[in-house]
Amino acid sequence: MQGEQLKQLLEQVKKGDLSVDEAVEKLRHLPYEDLGFACLDHHRAIRRGFPEVIYCPGKTIEQIVKIFGALAKKGNNVLATRADEEVFEAISQTTEFAQARYEKPARAIVLEQKPLQRSKTVVPIVTAGTADLPVAAEAQVTAEIMGQRTELIYDVGVAGLHRLLGQLEKLQNANVIIVVAGMEGALASVIGGLVSCPVIAVPTSVGYGASFEGLSALLTMLNSCAAGVTVVNIDNGFSAAVTAALMCRKIEQGG
Amino acid sequence: MQGEQLKQLLEQVKKGDLSVDEAVEKLRHLPYEDLGFACLDHHRAIRRGFPEVIYCPGKTIEQIVKIFGALAKKGNNVLATRADEEVFEAISQTTEFAQARYEKPARAIVLEQKPLQRSKTVVPIVTAGTADLPVAAEAQVTAEIMGQRTELIYDVGVAGLHRLLGQLEKLQNANVIIVVAGMEGALASVIGGLVSCPVIAVPTSVGYGASFEGLSALLTMLNSCAAGVTVVNIDNGFSAAVTAALMCRKIEQGG
Amino acid sequence: MQGEQLKQLLEQVKKGDLSVDEAVEKLRHLPYEDLGFACLDHHRAIRRGFPEVIYCPGKTIEQIVKIFGALAKKGNNVLATRADEEVFEAISQTTEFAQARYEKPARAIVLEQKPLQRSKTVVPIVTAGTADLPVAAEAQVTAEIMGQRTELIYDVGVAGLHRLLGQLEKLQNANVIIVVAGMEGALASVIGGLVSCPVIAVPTSVGYGASFEGLSALLTMLNSCAAGVTVVNIDNGFSAAVTAALMCRKIEQGG
Amino acid sequence: MQGEQLKQLLEQVKKGDLSVDEAVEKLRHLPYEDLGFACLDHHRAIRRGFPEVIYCPGKTIEQIVKIFGALAKKGNNVLATRADEEVFEAISQTTEFAQARYEKPARAIVLEQKPLQRSKTVVPIVTAGTADLPVAAEAQVTAEIMGQRTELIYDVGVAGLHRLLGQLEKLQNANVIIVVAGMEGALASVIGGLVSCPVIAVPTSVGYGASFEGLSALLTMLNSCAAGVTVVNIDNGFSAAVTAALMCRKIEQGG
Amino acid sequence: MQGEQLKQLLEQVKKGDLSVDEAVEKLRHLPYEDLGFACLDHHRAIRRGFPEVIYCPGKTIEQIVKIFGALAKKGNNVLATRADEEVFEAISQTTEFAQARYEKPARAIVLEQKPLQRSKTVVPIVTAGTADLPVAAEAQVTAEIMGQRTELIYDVGVAGLHRLLGQLEKLQNANVIIVVAGMEGALASVIGGLVSCPVIAVPTSVGYGASFEGLSALLTMLNSCAAGVTVVNIDNGFSAAVTAALMCRKIEQGG
Amino acid sequence: MQGEQLKQLLEQVKKGDLSVDEAVEKLRHLPYEDLGFACLDHHRAIRRGFPEVIYCPGKTIEQIVKIFGALAKKGNNVLATRADEEVFEAISQTTEFAQARYEKPARAIVLEQKPLQRSKTVVPIVTAGTADLPVAAEAQVTAEIMGQRTELIYDVGVAGLHRLLGQLEKLQNANVIIVVAGMEGALASVIGGLVSCPVIAVPTSVGYGASFEGLSALLTMLNSCAAGVTVVNIDNGFSAAVTAALMCRKIEQGG
Amino acid sequence: MQGEQLKQLLEQVKKGDLSVDEAVEKLRHLPYEDLGFACLDHHRAIRRGFPEVIYCPGKTIEQIVKIFGALAKKGNNVLATRADEEVFEAISQTTEFAQARYEKPARAIVLEQKPLQRSKTVVPIVTAGTADLPVAAEAQVTAEIMGQRTELIYDVGVAGLHRLLGQLEKLQNANVIIVVAGMEGALASVIGGLVSCPVIAVPTSVGYGASFEGLSALLTMLNSCAAGVTVVNIDNGFSAAVTAALMCRKIEQGG
Amino acid sequence: MQGEQLKQLLEQVKKGDLSVDEAVEKLRHLPYEDLGFACLDHHRAIRRGFPEVIYCPGKTIEQIVKIFGALAKKGNNVLATRADEEVFEAISQTTEFAQARYEKPARAIVLEQKPLQRSKTVVPIVTAGTADLPVAAEAQVTAEIMGQRTELIYDVGVAGLHRLLGQLEKLQNANVIIVVAGMEGALASVIGGLVSCPVIAVPTSVGYGASFEGLSALLTMLNSCAAGVTVVNIDNGFSAAVTAALMCRKIEQGG
Repeated sequence: MQGEQLKQLLEQVKKGDLSVDEAVEKLRHLPYEDLGFACLDHHRAIRRGFPEVIYCPGKTIEQIVKIFGALAKKGNNVLATRADEEVFEAISQTTEFAQARYEKPARAIVLEQKPLQRSKTVVPIVTAGTADLPVAAEAQVTAEIMGQRTELIYDVGVAGLHRLLGQLEKLQNANVIIVVAGMEGALASVIGGLVSCPVIAVPTSVGYGASFEGLSALLTMLNSCAAGVTVVNIDNGFSAAVTAALMCRKIEQGG
Repeated sequence: MQGEQLKQLLEQVKKGDLSVDEAVEKLRHLPYEDLGFACLDHHRAIRRGFPEVIYCPGKTIEQIVKIFGALAKKGNNVLATRADEEVFEAISQTTEFAQARYEKPARAIVLEQKPLQRSKTVVPIVTAGTADLPVAAEAQVTAEIMGQRTELIYDVGVAGLHRLLGQLEKLQNANVIIVVAGMEGALASVIGGLVSCPVIAVPTSVGYGASFEGLSALLTMLNSCAAGVTVVNIDNGFSAAVTAALMCRKIEQGG
Repeated sequence: MQGEQLKQLLEQVKKGDLSVDEAVEKLRHLPYEDLGFACLDHHRAIRRGFPEVIYCPGKTIEQIVKIFGALAKKGNNVLATRADEEVFEAISQTTEFAQARYEKPARAIVLEQKPLQRSKTVVPIVTAGTADLPVAAEAQVTAEIMGQRTELIYDVGVAGLHRLLGQLEKLQNANVIIVVAGMEGALASVIGGLVSCPVIAVPTSVGYGASFEGLSALLTMLNSCAAGVTVVNIDNGFSAAVTAALMCRKIEQGG
Repeated sequence: MQGEQLKQLLEQVKKGDLSVDEAVEKLRHLPYEDLGFACLDHHRAIRRGFPEVIYCPGKTIEQIVKIFGALAKKGNNVLATRADEEVFEAISQTTEFAQARYEKPARAIVLEQKPLQRSKTVVPIVTAGTADLPVAAEAQVTAEIMGQRTELIYDVGVAGLHRLLGQLEKLQNANVIIVVAGMEGALASVIGGLVSCPVIAVPTSVGYGASFEGLSALLTMLNSCAAGVTVVNIDNGFSAAVTAALMCRKIEQGG
Repeated sequence: MQGEQLKQLLEQVKKGDLSVDEAVEKLRHLPYEDLGFACLDHHRAIRRGFPEVIYCPGKTIEQIVKIFGALAKKGNNVLATRADEEVFEAISQTTEFAQARYEKPARAIVLEQKPLQRSKTVVPIVTAGTADLPVAAEAQVTAEIMGQRTELIYDVGVAGLHRLLGQLEKLQNANVIIVVAGMEGALASVIGGLVSCPVIAVPTSVGYGASFEGLSALLTMLNSCAAGVTVVNIDNGFSAAVTAALMCRKIEQGG
Repeated sequence: MQGEQLKQLLEQVKKGDLSVDEAVEKLRHLPYEDLGFACLDHHRAIRRGFPEVIYCPGKTIEQIVKIFGALAKKGNNVLATRADEEVFEAISQTTEFAQARYEKPARAIVLEQKPLQRSKTVVPIVTAGTADLPVAAEAQVTAEIMGQRTELIYDVGVAGLHRLLGQLEKLQNANVIIVVAGMEGALASVIGGLVSCPVIAVPTSVGYGASFEGLSALLTMLNSCAAGVTVVNIDNGFSAAVTAALMCRKIEQGG
Repeated sequence: MQGEQLKQLLEQVKKGDLSVDEAVEKLRHLPYEDLGFACLDHHRAIRRGFPEVIYCPGKTIEQIVKIFGALAKKGNNVLATRADEEVFEAISQTTEFAQARYEKPARAIVLEQKPLQRSKTVVPIVTAGTADLPVAAEAQVTAEIMGQRTELIYDVGVAGLHRLLGQLEKLQNANVIIVVAGMEGALASVIGGLVSCPVIAVPTSVGYGASFEGLSALLTMLNSCAAGVTVVNIDNGFSAAVTAALMCRKIEQGG
Repeated sequence: MQGEQLKQLLEQVKKGDLSVDEAVEKLRHLPYEDLGFACLDHHRAIRRGFPEVIYCPGKTIEQIVKIFGALAKKGNNVLATRADEEVFEAISQTTEFAQARYEKPARAIVLEQKPLQRSKTVVPIVTAGTADLPVAAEAQVTAEIMGQRTELIYDVGVAGLHRLLGQLEKLQNANVIIVVAGMEGALASVIGGLVSCPVIAVPTSVGYGASFEGLSALLTMLNSCAAGVTVVNIDNGFSAAVTAALMCRKIEQGG
């Protein structure tokens, strides 16, 4: 649409139906959306191959099913995060997306209808305790649907350091590591001090009392004295995975 | 004094000058302080050998000098914490307490005029970074004036785990360990997971931004998943040392 | 396993199949886990006789039953904390752990299949109000399964000081005291000022409004002007009991 | 002015120059200030004998001197709170208020130029530590210039309960008690549980670390389980004193 | 009991069976509870006529019924606050306390089995909005069972100032006023500026968003620039009523 | 009533039964309510045409139905906000207000029984995400029942800037814009920098973790570096709409 | 510059040197800045007559002088906010801006070198206490340099309601009111309930203790139950004034 | 040293002076530091070419000079962050490090004595306002001494979107972007929505009032709805730069 409007304008200039000054004036007032779209297309081109994403909380089941359908029909892969099981059931009942599956621990719906180009390298997703697994699972599902291979290393909290040290080689060979931890969240600092790659820290809301729903782990991670540790929102396995996948793609593509 | 008042009353009962009922009534109204002192004396007896302590902030120099003098004159050891250097100068100028010394890193004034019975065991005071040293020093000065021997192990933060692991044997042989750490405060958890003795964690106000003056380290330590870790107030090296010394005395005395 | 790998390497050196320099290089790259395990074993040896512990929140019932079974089969005592009654029912239905019992006030599952060596001394667990009892009960169950005898002293809040003073002798004879209090949490300071042993303070989430889920009691306890008071996380009766038991064991063993 | 305007209107009604309906309409639209002043006067009458008060922070020395002068000239007693010494010097230099004095510990300027009617009863102002004295002093100066007699009972914190119990009789005879305490602020609860009169609790900013500038003491006092305890702002000795003086006046006047 | 023990001791002194020194020693070690009870009795005497109170949250229904029964059997009036309707039903089913009634808006159970001496004066309980009524009702029920007459003035928030001003005379004649307000809590300041008696401010958890469960109203009230305003915990109608009743009793008794 | 009382007084003055001075005195003491009402009427006159509003939370269904009926009977339009569907059902069952309708997304009940004078201009209500729609809907329903036309522009969050820029012309022509956003709430700043009219920012509680129930969006909006942005409470679409409608009315009326 | 680049491109199309498709492609890649500037210009046109503004904190004196000079040379009016007196002295010393003046109470530097079109209406700026004056002054200076006339009404806090009511008529006639208040910040609600125009509330950091640097006033204002009240950042008199001036301009221009 | 100890042990095995079993036992008890150093060396090897870093706050000038000297003598590059100018002067006076320079805006001391391998790609460091420059400068100095080339893009805050859009191409071509912003911190989200590479967000303490020393910007960035945004501590330009440099090195090395 934007192209057409712009072309017509330029044709008018070419034909002399519109003076250059008039054209300048008209261009100034073209709705931003059109010009903006150019940016959007370019932008999307770079991100090609990534799934469309729906963040479910605050949306009604009807809204989610509708958005899911619209995105799926374009042929893209679709990821719905923080989805209750009943959302998946509603999507299943439409019978249109037989391939859609429910990743229960991650509370995610995944529709993989376009082949993925799987990464060469593997991102370790390290988690301190069993209760942190749902957040780690969200990170894993997200990375995988972006084509990024992952390995889940679990139950290696700082209170049992030997278990962590047993995984050291894997960690020291990684390009980027996702660390998922609640309670005191010290794991990110400890790992950050042992490796030379960036560490993406995901505080979780696991804990009670003075964990204040993840605030404790969040502050710990932000104050990490190990440089190279960056932090995402509490329980935000999704964003950690997107960041890690973006990094790894850059690395595999050589920038 | 209380003894005298009580004795007189009992003598009156004995002599018949006072009926039993009258005595009961009088005893009910004896000022609590007198009865309370009995408790106090007993209490002090248990704590015998400990120094008198002055917490300086919020007191004027004049007040501190006066309290210091009063306590010192009883012959006890005296410890003044959080004392600015000018407080020490004011005390020095009185020329009465030639033995008083200023422990600069700990900001403490120590008057040791009564021989200390030195403990057999040593309490490790472990600290993450150079900036945490003043708090560790306060703990050390406090423990030492209580007769508790200590060893300062410094600069073993979690971001350089190998330095910590190099001290492991010492830590595993201790009866109790004081851990002093700011920023993310993860050191207490890591040590708590490596040893089988109680760990007293002292969060410090070292850090900036989201350390929120020590809040981050405090929350980390409270949320430690390593059981056996207890926490004192931010920068409170004094209380950590008192607790450690009380414990060790119990251990050396066998309860 | 680690031993085998190391032995073979040393045999090769001995036989001359491997030069010293090659061996040094190989040793540098031995996975940490192996070396770490030596530490672990030593560590466990010290902690011998303690139960295995499962913290239930955030774990599915299936996960808990599985972990419980795995730990129980080693013949150890097992403690599952913060367990809903339905978790206990699921464990009961496995019919494998007939000895397992549910401690309802403490919300704990206890499997005592190995004889306990009961401590000589008794730890007072003091609680301010009836609503603090579940946290005190968690502390009691935890200490008892560690072999530490306890005595629950309840309903002695600071608003009725005479009840507390009536228990003074018991408190003054203890080696360590656990104080459990919500709302304003002042009890820890008051007791801390009356005794000469360490006090472990457990703030509880009992209260409303400006108690902010236990924050008020936590801050009060951290700011206690009675030295010798250390604090654990809100509602963390478990960690207080572990600390107290570790201390008392040290005392009975003489360090 | 208001009186004049109203009188003229009523005169017009009297003379028949204005109908009753017209007068009603005019009265409806009289500026509120005039009618409001009637209220003000009445109000002031009730509060008669109280000093005029200036809260100094945020005002320039020039502004304070000007306001002080204006209030003093009406012949009332004047109290300036939170006044730096240089403010008092500026007021002294005006040479107009020779009677004005500077209460250094309270940081208050007092001008007592009208005789006070001194109360029969005495309000105990109890304070936990030496560092709380400035706030207690502000309360004392404020109460005294309102005619309310006070007695300062200091250094009776909960960590030395026997000293407090020694003052019990005085406290149990009071009509109202002001309790000033920083750090953990437990004193208000303890006293509240020992007496049957209202307790006004003043948290102070004395402390460090997790005292968070008085927040800890404030929360403790708000959560007091001793009913009858009400709380004022951190360090607000002034408001506590005003409340206590208002109460006592009511009591002495029999309502 | 304590009396007996003390009398016997004094009788022994009188008879010469016990020397004065022995008696002094014995008295020192009398359990505090006994001596404390003297204090307690005296204390209770002052508070005579007040009801026994049970704060229900955190207690099981069984515990509440048991405590209720125990207190009721002494013949006292009993007040159970924050009681769910099912608690009342459980008490009703015991059929022992036919007089017990459930005050639904206040969520309180009241057993009035001893005649009340009703106060001469009336305490206005002013509330800003309909949603604040439960807290105001708790204050009202509490005051009434203490014999204190009250009048509920509702829906006079600062956003409709004229309604408040219409009640001004009543407020200006009161001895003490309870103000109950959520959201911005400004009502306490406004009333505090219009009257010359103490104002007890009760912040409520009414509101949403940045009211942070009553924190906003609490801070507003603590920062009131109208001196004479003191504050209780969020939603604590009970404590406000106790304080007001204590004050009024003092006033009616003339101190 | 007030009129009558005032008229009688003036009649007395007219007749000479009351001197002017006596009348002045009597007028001073007329209850505020009467005089206040004059103000009220005038005030209401200005606000004429606006609906009566009921904020439902914290009110029982019975209370809401009663208030709704009372307001509706005066013939005004009525708006009940934050109303659960069952409230609407209760109102429907009264059969008196057949015109009342339930606006589900906004959770509002609207009774439009008086013709609205619809505004000429349109207020854009811009929202960042689907989950913010309920708050935007509350703003829309509120504005519309005040006669203010609106246009909802949704799903134009800052993470997809081109969609926002496509709406730029509409925004730049508005007199005032309402921006509704949760999570990071950056939309208000971005729009504020693109337009020259006031922007009313409504933070929403949409988000998780460190959004702290809308606190993050609230702080973002308060710190906007784009001048001309003002903020209302979290989720307070109602107040934003009232403010916008008041502004637009002023503009259409020329002040 | 942007114009030139665009013109040349269009000339090339006109001449046939560039095909329409090539031109479309080129336009897509024109740096955004150029197209953006069109928007900027248009935007600025709307805001014409407003001063350039420099927010001083965090900038060095050298930076401020340089920016001030650059803006002043374009012939616009310039406003520098939060400027220390030494900044003004540095600007004075450049001798270039003789007209620049320092508004001391507002801490603002004003250069008025272009005639202002003064508004017909007046914005009341109401302030609770003397200490709030600097923030009110910032609002006043800002509004005036935007051509908006203002009237400062001060010292009308809610604790002296009659003074506020005396100003009621002025307030009820305003198009918009700025309310500046610290401490409990209740003034905004009270005024909001008395008037029918929008109220812009500015919380100030005036206060101590639980005012938490303005947080208390901020929360109060956000929770105002008087609809039509919107809030800006603590101490942000500038933004309040800009918003008020934008509104009034719209009103005077009829939208 | 560790090498020597290990070699000797292996030589003993080779010579038969030590049995394999004895050697295993000895190796188990080698201090961890030695074994740890193996890890450290390997680790350092990966990080080769990076500077040694000193974080200055909390260290005395004497301590910093000493540490600086020790690190510098190893021939490495040294970076001292958050260094006051007087620290640099003290280092200058040692006359040993003539090459050391002071980067004033970044408050950093840089000693570059080893040639840097400069990166091929450039990291954009984008900053919202002039006051954010010191943090951006710290990031820039840090990255540059790690060999990472950077470009500072400043003053492109969201309130002037066109300036940002003018830099879009540069941003869209980057491998990673550092965004530095205070106040509302919205810039990170806006950029995150426009690019497809990871964005490292640095909240700054720039702002006032409800910016709460950077908390507002921190929360905004954590809540960013643009995936791929990770966050570091407030004002932590250093850690952002280290992370970005680590990433870019990986990319240039192809993992």
